[in-house]
Amino acid sequence: MQLAMVDDRIQALEDLHKAYQDRGLFFGDGVYEVLRSYQGRIFALDEHLQRFEKSLAAIDINGVDLDMVRRRIERAFEAAEIANAKIYFHITRGAAPRSHLEQPDMEPTFLLTVTKLEDDTHAKTNGIAVSTHPDWRWKKCDIKSLNLLPNVLARRNAAKKDCYEAILVDEAGLITEGAGSAFFAIFGRSLHTAPLAANILPSITRAFVIQAARNISLQLREQSILPTQAKLADELFIAVTTQDIIPVVKFDEQTIANGAPGPFTQQLISEFRKFTHKTS
Amino acid sequence: MQLAMVDDRIQALEDLHKAYQDRGLFFGDGVYEVLRSYQGRIFALDEHLQRFEKSLAAIDINGVDLDMVRRRIERAFEAAEIANAKIYFHITRGAAPRSHLEQPDMEPTFLLTVTKLEDDTHAKTNGIAVSTHPDWRWKKCDIKSLNLLPNVLARRNAAKKDCYEAILVDEAGLITEGAGSAFFAIFGRSLHTAPLAANILPSITRAFVIQAARNISLQLREQSILPTQAKLADELFIAVTTQDIIPVVKFDEQTIANGAPGPFTQQLISEFRKFTHKTS
Repeated sequence: MQLAMVDDRIQALEDLHKAYQDRGLFFGDGVYEVLRSYQGRIFALDEHLQRFEKSLAAIDINGVDLDMVRRRIERAFEAAEIANAKIYFHITRGAAPRSHLEQPDMEPTFLLTVTKLEDDTHAKTNGIAVSTHPDWRWKKCDIKSLNLLPNVLARRNAAKKDCYEAILVDEAGLITEGAGSAFFAIFGRSLHTAPLAANILPSITRAFVIQAARNISLQLREQSILPTQAKLADELFIAVTTQDIIPVVKFDEQTIANGAPGPFTQQLISEFRKFTHKTS
Repeated sequence: MQLAMVDDRIQALEDLHKAYQDRGLFFGDGVYEVLRSYQGRIFALDEHLQRFEKSLAAIDINGVDLDMVRRRIERAFEAAEIANAKIYFHITRGAAPRSHLEQPDMEPTFLLTVTKLEDDTHAKTNGIAVSTHPDWRWKKCDIKSLNLLPNVLARRNAAKKDCYEAILVDEAGLITEGAGSAFFAIFGRSLHTAPLAANILPSITRAFVIQAARNISLQLREQSILPTQAKLADELFIAVTTQDIIPVVKFDEQTIANGAPGPFTQQLISEFRKFTHKTS
């Protein structure tokens, strides 16, 4: 008899919960998004849905109705009644007994959670420490896939060093991005970040940071830098959906500038707030 | 209220099935093995458990009792009463609401399935066609992790070309291995396969193939080759736990030698059978 075992319980294979046979679990065969709301309003839903559509296409999961995804997100968000919420959702290629090739009649699985989001005001006010880690990720980081083990390992390594985020460094020695964030450095009035390519997630928050930088007349330089250069920056920060801009005041144990969040970073935080707290 | 949604059903977050909150699903934060049995006996259990232990250590999942894992495998295999079985098992870092960093008190999840394995005698007798695909995998392919999306994408690409397996090619243009198999080429009396490194899974079947090759006096050359070289090989084959050795007779639409499984490959299949069908 074909069977399954979860922890120490044996059961018939056909009784195994569908979630344990999800291709997301066996292979990471799915793509995801993380959204947040500010004061009862979901931020940048269109942009996240557009990226999600690209991710689905990139791994060839077809037939997903994006309008239905949007309606589900809105329905769940309304039902949750959480003003500052974190919305996670993913779609996998579906569930079936494990085989690299999917079955022809497979239905994608949709999973979403809405949870309370705590704004990390301490990090935003005082800045954070980050540490570098080799970028072990796959060659298609522009796809927001469920294959996140290298990100987890980098983040765990950072946490062991009491760092908030891991900054990934590729084989050429250049900074790509954070394990779960975009990375920025300011030199004078120039804002540096890695150019979008297959090794960079096209971060939605990054796009808004660039708009904010334009608003305060910073010059954008889309070019990768070395950790040794990052340590000499006037200001550093990361950008992530759940917290938008967080100043970086320590990089691999090196204090950045005077060790406090820099003036341009603070201006960018204020500009960003105009996007997220628009009066309608 | 924090909530979850599976497909179109909203539920309280605390009612969401544990499997949907598994770090294996959110991140691929786990490692796995595939075993098979021949005629009622599990093959190479020790070797698979040793590799599993290394994979667990490599991603820092600690405190797993490997003897307990062994007992579970044996108990499930006996309960299934399937002579030629495929045994899949994995351990993930556990289940909890999604966060890159795990909770400190997390219990790893163990999942196992025992299913019927059909020997693919057609493939073994007639050989298979394979096609190349860029190796998009992460930098730690020596860890047998659940981050298998690049393997799935490569395999799907091969299937579209009516090929049985995808042969992965790195950025230097060299063959690494199959999406789910080790890859071998025979030139004269030399058996070529990629050397074990971070970009190669230390295949158990590969180790037995090397032993078999020694038994028939083939010379082992652990060096990577180009697709153009592979097309000129006297013989090609792949090695995979579930089917051991499968001859390759077509490589990127190029017929190999006379298009039939080669004599050394057939000898290796016979030698391999001595390992799997030992009289005890």
